[in-house]
Amino acid sequence: MDKDLNAAGLRKLIRSGEWTTPTSGAATGYVQANLVMLPEEAAFEFLLFCVRNPKPCPILDVLEPGEVEPSIAPGADLRVDLPKYRVFRNGTIEKEGGDVMHIFQDNMVSFLLGCSFSFENALLAAGVPVRNIAEGKNVSMYVTTRKCVPAGRFSSPLVVSMRPMTPENAVRATQVSTRFHLTHGAPVHLGSPEELGINDLSNPDFGDPVEILPGEIPVFWACGVTSTLAAVSSPLPLVITHAPGHMFVSDLRDEDLTLL
Amino acid sequence: MDKDLNAAGLRKLIRSGEWTTPTSGAATGYVQANLVMLPEEAAFEFLLFCVRNPKPCPILDVLEPGEVEPSIAPGADLRVDLPKYRVFRNGTIEKEGGDVMHIFQDNMVSFLLGCSFSFENALLAAGVPVRNIAEGKNVSMYVTTRKCVPAGRFSSPLVVSMRPMTPENAVRATQVSTRFHLTHGAPVHLGSPEELGINDLSNPDFGDPVEILPGEIPVFWACGVTSTLAAVSSPLPLVITHAPGHMFVSDLRDEDLTLL
Repeated sequence: MDKDLNAAGLRKLIRSGEWTTPTSGAATGYVQANLVMLPEEAAFEFLLFCVRNPKPCPILDVLEPGEVEPSIAPGADLRVDLPKYRVFRNGTIEKEGGDVMHIFQDNMVSFLLGCSFSFENALLAAGVPVRNIAEGKNVSMYVTTRKCVPAGRFSSPLVVSMRPMTPENAVRATQVSTRFHLTHGAPVHLGSPEELGINDLSNPDFGDPVEILPGEIPVFWACGVTSTLAAVSSPLPLVITHAPGHMFVSDLRDEDLTLL
Repeated sequence: MDKDLNAAGLRKLIRSGEWTTPTSGAATGYVQANLVMLPEEAAFEFLLFCVRNPKPCPILDVLEPGEVEPSIAPGADLRVDLPKYRVFRNGTIEKEGGDVMHIFQDNMVSFLLGCSFSFENALLAAGVPVRNIAEGKNVSMYVTTRKCVPAGRFSSPLVVSMRPMTPENAVRATQVSTRFHLTHGAPVHLGSPEELGINDLSNPDFGDPVEILPGEIPVFWACGVTSTLAAVSSPLPLVITHAPGHMFVSDLRDEDLTLL
């Protein structure tokens, strides 16, 4: 079973090319991460962007220039251990593919940022249903009219993910996700999508639409896609990210990230 | 009364030269911060050091190169709004003085890092006595044998502050300070100073010794002095910090920093 793999086992399948699909639901209980790689020359400004916007861009690990083995997964290689990458040149996507062994350059800095998969597991464990998981879909994501705090050349609107819930479950989900401040933490909004500039919940900017039942309200969390938009908001010569849903799986356990 | 000043009022006294003493206990309820200013060339590595060591070096604000007005205190000027500064050249202290208006350079980046004064107020509010405040002394601080995670050229031992408490108050203090993750958060240790390499509690490396009563145990928190030791661990041409106890007073309120 995919979910019974541990992180190292899943990374081994990915590195050998046997696993090329999204990582959602795989190696349950291990922290997954968004990846951004960019030139050292821009690394301070991008790190500053993450520090200034901790809800969408919670920092799990930042590597020294040229390094590819993260402290949160000894033995891993960020150039080959994700199932799919995106390569951007001068702000435009150039290719999507299976490894970046010969594209990564020694002057690049790698950032690993938290992902909502961790608190989704905690929601399920707390008895809060998660619609996108129940429907076997990617979570609904929307570009909002809220601006992140810019840093140097980097800027981005806030991107959010949405999960519909009963009001009672929204309260419980707020309590549960608050503990996971390194994977987006508490919701940024609930109930009124128009206040975020979202006019049609059935038409997300990324991911899939999900059913919203009578009596449910939309609950919005800051989303790691924000970090990808920020990284390509300036036309850098080379930026590498994970492909959506194809995350880096670390050796950290979800519970390692809780504050309390 | 000093404690009834608001942050802007206290900064005005400091800027005019009417206030030159430590800021402990002044403008109660406003978040105070450690200051580190260093050349842009080293800013990524120092920011990375802070990110990798969030307990001793919790990031409150990082400014763009050359900027001196922090987002957490609009109208302030970091070159003149602290009562005393330290200037280091090539890793060695050169002078201690009242402003750095003509020393700060346009290529420098300013870091404001959390300080334990915030949770001390919360401890008092929760009915937990704080010995250094009761005795009118600076808190006892010790260089430990624990190493911080290095980043680039920067490294430092962990520095801790110590407050003696009854075991019952140590539990309450752990609960209260946990909420203040941006001002060092929960204790890093309690009870056994020798495990941190501290052999004589009555002989602190910084600050003053305080009385430890029968039945009390020492409770240790990560301390912002760590950031100063890290900043001067590499012989940079110019580093500016606050002088110990002479902090920057921001417009943030202590309660703005709590996670829950």
